[in-house]
Amino acid sequence: MKEFQLIEHYFTGQSQHRKDVKLGIGDDCALVKPAENKLLAISTDTLVENVHFLPQMPPQALGYKALAVNLSDLAAMGAEPAWMTLALTMPSADDVWLQGFAAGLFEAADYYMISLVGGDTTRGPKSITITVHGQVPEGKALTRKGAKPGDWIYVTGTLGDSALGLDILQGRQSTSNEHREFLINRHYHPSPRVLAGQSLRGLASSAIDLSDGLNSDIRHVLKASGVGAVIDVEKLPLSPAMRDSVTLETALNYALCGGEDYELLFTVPEAQRGALDTALSHAGVRFTQIGQIQPVNKLKLQFKGEEFVPTQRGFEHFQ
Amino acid sequence: MKEFQLIEHYFTGQSQHRKDVKLGIGDDCALVKPAENKLLAISTDTLVENVHFLPQMPPQALGYKALAVNLSDLAAMGAEPAWMTLALTMPSADDVWLQGFAAGLFEAADYYMISLVGGDTTRGPKSITITVHGQVPEGKALTRKGAKPGDWIYVTGTLGDSALGLDILQGRQSTSNEHREFLINRHYHPSPRVLAGQSLRGLASSAIDLSDGLNSDIRHVLKASGVGAVIDVEKLPLSPAMRDSVTLETALNYALCGGEDYELLFTVPEAQRGALDTALSHAGVRFTQIGQIQPVNKLKLQFKGEEFVPTQRGFEHFQ
Repeated sequence: MKEFQLIEHYFTGQSQHRKDVKLGIGDDCALVKPAENKLLAISTDTLVENVHFLPQMPPQALGYKALAVNLSDLAAMGAEPAWMTLALTMPSADDVWLQGFAAGLFEAADYYMISLVGGDTTRGPKSITITVHGQVPEGKALTRKGAKPGDWIYVTGTLGDSALGLDILQGRQSTSNEHREFLINRHYHPSPRVLAGQSLRGLASSAIDLSDGLNSDIRHVLKASGVGAVIDVEKLPLSPAMRDSVTLETALNYALCGGEDYELLFTVPEAQRGALDTALSHAGVRFTQIGQIQPVNKLKLQFKGEEFVPTQRGFEHFQ
Repeated sequence: MKEFQLIEHYFTGQSQHRKDVKLGIGDDCALVKPAENKLLAISTDTLVENVHFLPQMPPQALGYKALAVNLSDLAAMGAEPAWMTLALTMPSADDVWLQGFAAGLFEAADYYMISLVGGDTTRGPKSITITVHGQVPEGKALTRKGAKPGDWIYVTGTLGDSALGLDILQGRQSTSNEHREFLINRHYHPSPRVLAGQSLRGLASSAIDLSDGLNSDIRHVLKASGVGAVIDVEKLPLSPAMRDSVTLETALNYALCGGEDYELLFTVPEAQRGALDTALSHAGVRFTQIGQIQPVNKLKLQFKGEEFVPTQRGFEHFQ
């Protein structure tokens, strides 16, 4: 296993030096100091080659995205990123790949101020498991439970770009060079809405991040909160690249079912709506009201008042 | 991915209900409340099929061991187990295997009072990544750094049993039925020395858990502490099963190079030796003095005063 112990040098000493890391990589455990009066938020995500990513995915994009999808879970709780561990399994130590992967991982880690404090490198079919830790003041975490009838439903950013980007990469769609670059970048470099999540503390009644697609993920909020919703599909935020590249119907299907957006969906009571603009202006992220929570426990999708039936076009895992 | 969402029911609601778990499995993150004035100890280990375990390993043993090897890292820091996440990748949802795996995992989790708070189940070649979290009072953690010349070197339990058990399982060694059961059990159900680790706080100057074998792991302590050591090989603690099954030379080689013992190796200054008996009596674990830390930065293995050269017989990963 010498070869794999050597891998560690790619991941040691490159990370953010947070003062709350008392002992980093290299002992039996890392030691960190949690902040007082805060809860610790923990989440784990695994990316498996040929399931969650294709072998030809650039390693830098993969390193970035493997962390970004985990940070998106912290964002959805309103937590500040703090520490992470990386379990990396690969068939052999490939220097070029490791350099790219580490560069992408630390690009995201440095930007979002999260320290790599430990991990494990093993031989086997390629997969990446990251466990992230964040902190959130007690009583301030955003959860999926808490949406009430009458609350307004919002999303950050624009929807569907990542899935269209994947389809372009795989030759199922095409567009101009400029849009192509934007859409592929949205697939490879999602922006976890970490600051937006923190800004929503005390304002949002519930939140979730969009990983499988709005049409699927919103159901987790509705189920956990025991409510229903109406979504006005015509309000779904679409990027210019999306609008220019496909028909409106296709665009709305990407936005509903596309997956891997890593935008936030959140609900806000009427009384808090006025405070949203100020709160989210710091986060520098667009947000759009797309519907309203209903007492009846079902999801209604409508386009200008008429029922909208998605064709389920969009995101699928590769197998 | 419906099939894999269903897997979650094997892991939900079975875990220890710790009061410090504020939100368990089922949201974007788990939320836990760290104790005040304690550091958080974090460690991650991955087990890959055909590398760290063979396909025929009973799932219950695998579930138990996957957690036990992680708990052993907490033990080596003197930390109390608290929470864990599980990232489980498997080619398809196999009910019988999942039931066994979950039973073994929760057997260890319940015994060591650690809560499963989150995770991810994905399709792919079988592997298990567990991230454990423990707590240790500030300034009391045991690390690999801190061994000083003159400190006495100890190990818990007996050494080499796990590697001999694996060789018996694979037909490379044989023994009586009674010893066979004991040795295989030591391979499948290692006992992480969690209480012993906590008892060593304030007494031990350094500690590590033995995963790759004494001859390999002690070098991490020597390197981190900037010291050397003499090990009196004839003092290495051997189980009756080990003594009865192989020659003394083979037994000592298993004890030195066997791996997967998950016993603790620790160093204790002369002034603290007298307090060891009392401290470790609560932990109910045998401990044996096997050598002494030296100022010269090398490792000397001796058998009754003569140099002992191990044959490196023992543990290897399966490829």
